[in-house]
Amino acid sequence: MKLLRIRKDGNVIPAILVSEEKLLDCSSITADFDGEFYESEGISKLEAALKANTLPVLEASPEDADSSIPRPGKIVCIGLNYSDHAKEAGMAEPDEPIIFMKATSALSGPFDPIRKPRAATELDWEVELGIVIGKTARYLESEEEALSHVAGYTVANDVSERAFQLKHGGQWTKGKSHDTFCPTGPWLVTPDEAGDPQNLQMTLSVNGETMQNGNTKTMIFPVSKIIHYLSQYMTLEAGDLIITGTPPGVGAGMVPQKWLQVGDVVSLSIEGLGTQTQTVIADE
Amino acid sequence: MKLLRIRKDGNVIPAILVSEEKLLDCSSITADFDGEFYESEGISKLEAALKANTLPVLEASPEDADSSIPRPGKIVCIGLNYSDHAKEAGMAEPDEPIIFMKATSALSGPFDPIRKPRAATELDWEVELGIVIGKTARYLESEEEALSHVAGYTVANDVSERAFQLKHGGQWTKGKSHDTFCPTGPWLVTPDEAGDPQNLQMTLSVNGETMQNGNTKTMIFPVSKIIHYLSQYMTLEAGDLIITGTPPGVGAGMVPQKWLQVGDVVSLSIEGLGTQTQTVIADE
Repeated sequence: MKLLRIRKDGNVIPAILVSEEKLLDCSSITADFDGEFYESEGISKLEAALKANTLPVLEASPEDADSSIPRPGKIVCIGLNYSDHAKEAGMAEPDEPIIFMKATSALSGPFDPIRKPRAATELDWEVELGIVIGKTARYLESEEEALSHVAGYTVANDVSERAFQLKHGGQWTKGKSHDTFCPTGPWLVTPDEAGDPQNLQMTLSVNGETMQNGNTKTMIFPVSKIIHYLSQYMTLEAGDLIITGTPPGVGAGMVPQKWLQVGDVVSLSIEGLGTQTQTVIADE
Repeated sequence: MKLLRIRKDGNVIPAILVSEEKLLDCSSITADFDGEFYESEGISKLEAALKANTLPVLEASPEDADSSIPRPGKIVCIGLNYSDHAKEAGMAEPDEPIIFMKATSALSGPFDPIRKPRAATELDWEVELGIVIGKTARYLESEEEALSHVAGYTVANDVSERAFQLKHGGQWTKGKSHDTFCPTGPWLVTPDEAGDPQNLQMTLSVNGETMQNGNTKTMIFPVSKIIHYLSQYMTLEAGDLIITGTPPGVGAGMVPQKWLQVGDVVSLSIEGLGTQTQTVIADE
């Protein structure tokens, strides 16, 4: 299933996409697609309702999508998880997953503008596979069981300000946490429909020019390893978002480097997970 | 005022402490001391109720305290913010505040045990002044206005696993995010009662032996600077927690280094903000 959170009349309505443009309203099943929904067998309830044909049509467009998840408890990011991207960033390939966090206040919808921070000079893009946790994961015993803790997959743009990230002292989170720096969606796709998470084509363009073109099969640490690893260091809770690193082709890796400017249009897709589009605007 | 969240009969009850042991039940005013409470003039309502003598006595002990705030949207941490601590950590004094994040799932009560992670070898303590945000702060224009965005101050222990933090690749958040790594409370003290946040004595002992003994006056970046600075990089929201760095005396800075072991008792205080006590237990 493809789960969306649709903005309509000032509310956010949980919906599923059943064909290219047809949405069904899921608000009889849940108020939102949050952690509690995933943990309380919400997907099974949805499947039953879909089968029983009890979900009404929602008169709205998939382009009215809010972020595919509500505010998560945490957004965990994996750094330098594609070997070619580590190379373009001029950094060594990591021996263990690099973890940092993005402020949850950075979450935004897939078609919302990216607000360029007032002091930004090096605004960059990163298409990433997002994992949404479906049930609590702590001290997982094996990588094999990790995938059973996934609610679904979603596209995320790990928007980054490289000067904030790398030239203002210390840790990366400073360049990753501005409002609108985490467009997420348009859909959350359940694992049964997403297929093998390690074989998804991913692409990102700026003003129509392809910048990133990769595949999750070149991840250094695959999804199952990431979840297993993180669960040794912290408790992953239902609704948490993990974004798993970006393939080559970010602006920081180009010669000369290329940064997003006001008016630029960023479009990113992952195979089967839909397409996001954002316009860069000046932050007020 | 001193605001507490008291555990009683499976619930958490908002309360204020009016003398050493006397608690008043604030649940007629708010369900919880959350961001919405602080943003909707909750403190003024409490003051009025206190003056009108309408708050009933809560039959409970201040030692039943849960964390002084519910799960925040984010926990922002400031690194190396005391010059002597930077020195003991063998790191340069920062030119700009170092920012990292702790998973919000690490939040725990002031008297809850610290759960030593299964793989931990270098478990350490850090007494810190916690700032709770009372109203949204973004792009603050001056440091002067920053303090008006503070709901109150609280004691926090920035529990850290140094091997996770420094020896497993990448960013500090890995050693800062385990469950129970952020005991917070027992009280949130409103700014009018807390006094000058840059002149608070702070102390931490392990098994009765004083390890840290500092004062917030030796912060490199004071509270007003921290809030102003952060607001340029991300939106601070009501209920968010900022912990502001630790004075010298952490285990990692000792010769030889000293790490917390199962059974150790950590006790930490900040002048006017109360005392926390935690026993270290093996995580299950």
